[in-house]
Amino acid sequence: MALTGDMLIGSSSTSASQGTMKALNPATGRPIEPGFALGGPAEVDRAARLADEAFDSYNRISPHERAAFLDLIAERLDGINEELAERAALETGLPVAQLRAEAAKAAGQFRQFADVVRAGRFHGATIDPAQPERQPRPRMDHRMQKIAVGPVAVFGASNFPISYSVAGGDTASALAAGCPVVVKAHNAHPGASELMGRAIQSAAADCGLHEGVFSLVRGAGNEIGEALVDHPLIKAVTFTGSEGGGMALYRRAQLRPDPIPVFAEMTSVNPTFVLPAALAARGDQVGDGFAERMLVNVGQACLKPAILLAVDGPGYAEMREAAATRVSAMEARTMLTPGIHDAYARNTQRLHDLGATTLTQGPEPQGAWEGRSQLLEVDGNRFLASPALAEEVFGPAALLVRLSGIAQLLEVARSFRGQLSATMHIDEPDYDDAARLLPILERRTGRIVVNAFAHPQEVGHATIHGGPYPATTDSRFTSVGMSSIDRFLRPVTYQGFPDALLPDALATRNPLGLWRLIDGRMTHD
Amino acid sequence: MALTGDMLIGSSSTSASQGTMKALNPATGRPIEPGFALGGPAEVDRAARLADEAFDSYNRISPHERAAFLDLIAERLDGINEELAERAALETGLPVAQLRAEAAKAAGQFRQFADVVRAGRFHGATIDPAQPERQPRPRMDHRMQKIAVGPVAVFGASNFPISYSVAGGDTASALAAGCPVVVKAHNAHPGASELMGRAIQSAAADCGLHEGVFSLVRGAGNEIGEALVDHPLIKAVTFTGSEGGGMALYRRAQLRPDPIPVFAEMTSVNPTFVLPAALAARGDQVGDGFAERMLVNVGQACLKPAILLAVDGPGYAEMREAAATRVSAMEARTMLTPGIHDAYARNTQRLHDLGATTLTQGPEPQGAWEGRSQLLEVDGNRFLASPALAEEVFGPAALLVRLSGIAQLLEVARSFRGQLSATMHIDEPDYDDAARLLPILERRTGRIVVNAFAHPQEVGHATIHGGPYPATTDSRFTSVGMSSIDRFLRPVTYQGFPDALLPDALATRNPLGLWRLIDGRMTHD
Repeated sequence: MALTGDMLIGSSSTSASQGTMKALNPATGRPIEPGFALGGPAEVDRAARLADEAFDSYNRISPHERAAFLDLIAERLDGINEELAERAALETGLPVAQLRAEAAKAAGQFRQFADVVRAGRFHGATIDPAQPERQPRPRMDHRMQKIAVGPVAVFGASNFPISYSVAGGDTASALAAGCPVVVKAHNAHPGASELMGRAIQSAAADCGLHEGVFSLVRGAGNEIGEALVDHPLIKAVTFTGSEGGGMALYRRAQLRPDPIPVFAEMTSVNPTFVLPAALAARGDQVGDGFAERMLVNVGQACLKPAILLAVDGPGYAEMREAAATRVSAMEARTMLTPGIHDAYARNTQRLHDLGATTLTQGPEPQGAWEGRSQLLEVDGNRFLASPALAEEVFGPAALLVRLSGIAQLLEVARSFRGQLSATMHIDEPDYDDAARLLPILERRTGRIVVNAFAHPQEVGHATIHGGPYPATTDSRFTSVGMSSIDRFLRPVTYQGFPDALLPDALATRNPLGLWRLIDGRMTHD
Repeated sequence: MALTGDMLIGSSSTSASQGTMKALNPATGRPIEPGFALGGPAEVDRAARLADEAFDSYNRISPHERAAFLDLIAERLDGINEELAERAALETGLPVAQLRAEAAKAAGQFRQFADVVRAGRFHGATIDPAQPERQPRPRMDHRMQKIAVGPVAVFGASNFPISYSVAGGDTASALAAGCPVVVKAHNAHPGASELMGRAIQSAAADCGLHEGVFSLVRGAGNEIGEALVDHPLIKAVTFTGSEGGGMALYRRAQLRPDPIPVFAEMTSVNPTFVLPAALAARGDQVGDGFAERMLVNVGQACLKPAILLAVDGPGYAEMREAAATRVSAMEARTMLTPGIHDAYARNTQRLHDLGATTLTQGPEPQGAWEGRSQLLEVDGNRFLASPALAEEVFGPAALLVRLSGIAQLLEVARSFRGQLSATMHIDEPDYDDAARLLPILERRTGRIVVNAFAHPQEVGHATIHGGPYPATTDSRFTSVGMSSIDRFLRPVTYQGFPDALLPDALATRNPLGLWRLIDGRMTHD
């Protein structure tokens, strides 16, 4: 597929209204062809109007048709797997093999959501049948289903240019819910964005859907994103990125005349607690595994385990040694953008300034924007005294926290802000301590992992990629996994309806074959 | 039960730190004994700290224990039914018989939530079992349940002093979710609030729960509410009341360092559409039924049908006549507060100023703060030209909108902002028009009623009392019905856990006997 550099607004290719830009190859520092069109509020307005026009029809097509659309997107993504991975590698400096796998995972996610649409549980179909004889007054028939909230604006991330971008989980779950999607393409990977956008655009056309079901816009600076969040026809926003960026969009959306939900997934250090028995038994394995996972994607992952905490004692030295060995062996690799590289340098310096000691570093970088891996250490008292030590450093650095005892471990656990994940390494003698740690972690994270690492992540029914602020802006939802569709659904009750006017999910003969809650009991009839 | 006028902070009775106030009898304009203690940020801080302390234990007690607490609250509410209804009648001017029924309904709601707790579906228990043989890498065991978000602040309404107040659905659903509750008592009915608060406080003590599970604070002005919304240990807020009050709390909560969910249920005119065949067949019945429901609670109800819309034609005159007859016969009755009475007078004048014509009024009021019923009419063009005609008038007034045809009916339907409910009166020949109107209403409301009126409301599994802004601040939730518990729940995934550490909802042997989603399939095993 030849890249045109256009924006994709409905079925049309739209050229620049505000100049063009080029992607940057972070490995060479050189721009990559072609030029990409930049737009602004005018393009946002056209995309949002089309999305609004598409809503009624897209929200009402059969589950079979909506699932077929998602399956066709998956097929189209598989068809461009190699091309997409190569372009994304050029634009991000990430390894092409990793990006092939990421593209395959993204396609698989659309197929999983096609299954979610066919199963229809997301409707939450509920029926309280009429009780004409009830005293003191009869009960009318009440039926509830969840439907799409309306057009959704998606702001993708830079660090996973496929699975958290144009064809990522936000787009897949919003389309599955019945919401038209307007994506603001990330300027760090415009070519990969166009490839994914064209795959979705062509699938929509081939399924005969209203063109407004998907658009992709692009702009310089904040203006285009602000226009998207402000647009009265946009009814929900998703964002993956920094705390600053996410909160700017969030607060802006809450100041609209009609506030709308913004699910922003922002920052997490994914604390990893090693309890004494596990530490004594396999401190070296934990230290090595931690460092290996920390270094994935050059440490540029929301699930990077960034802080490793253990009580000083048997196994501690082995854990530290194993982690240090792997970190010191890790060659420097190109980071996503020059800006991210520079921030990484500043943030590791900040850890020093706060009193952390460098245990080891990887080899000296060769390229300008390569990130040098680093392992630091601090004791529990210092960590508690400097809350900024618990803030995210985006890149291949990690902090080891040496604790004085279980009491300090629990105190440190309580000091963390909201997290996407937390991990406990435990053996059976640790279970009592783990049971004390567990409620502390439950209040602070959306996922607790035992004897493994949070990254990579499953995409399943039980997956939660969320957590209390600042991990996300709303701990009641997730941005990954099948229940991420819940962000885009709202309930509607139909009271006293004749069957002729009921939606299929609620019709008496259950034409969709759904599990439904009837009179308080789950049934499949 | 003798009223002491204290605040209830945990298990203690707390006297005033900022003076006292008395309730006002709106029928006489005279204050009622006793004086009620006023507090401020210090009382909020104590209540919030106790709630936070109570969280871990209350969130982890067995479903049986939590349900028993809710059942005991219901029993205590039944025990004070007469006393509560009489005090609430004194403080609100509402009929004591209606308030007895409201108190019984409130008690019933706690029993319904006890059943919800026992059934445990709200956990959304989901298990993706381990797949050790999966390629390219094994899947670990993932289990997800929803748990309580943390302490909840409840701001009750003035208009239903029991069922939307201290012992209303917000408190019941939050306690059912496992959230400790801090109620800010409404100053229009402090005595009723204390009675309900003591019922809950005594139930908590008799169940041996941590005292922080429930507190009731009271204050003059906005300071105490602001302190509640700002308190870092408060994790969610519910509010029922005006758009201005709700949005002030909402926006304040979004400006916290860590934003929290605020579910505010605010304003709705509950448009009622009468389609031509139904109008011709029974315009008189619809007109009479509309007016009867409109006048309930002196028109002081969030579900008051305030706007009646029909195409001019056969049955229209009969509908208008029937509505006018009932409105003109309705004697003036005492409104909830002097402020509400005065706003009602201003707002009906506003309808005149915007071009609506008064068709009829009820008899001249006898008391100072009695609301005189009123029926107004306007044509569709004028209605479309003056969006302010579609704004809520709190009190016994309604607006009839005479439309030129179905096209204008659909256009007017599209002009409405978000609503708690919308109603269609239809006969079979209207079904095609109804099918065109339906998607317009779905986008604008949380409940659509056919051939009945939205008020009164069921409290069931399929109940939704919510809708797009400004009906509420988040259309994805409801403040009434069993799914109102969802406002206070957040998902947590447990990955790779040994059974010994899993919560009961997720333990392999399914000790709670829950319906669970295992590997994508609903099962009861």
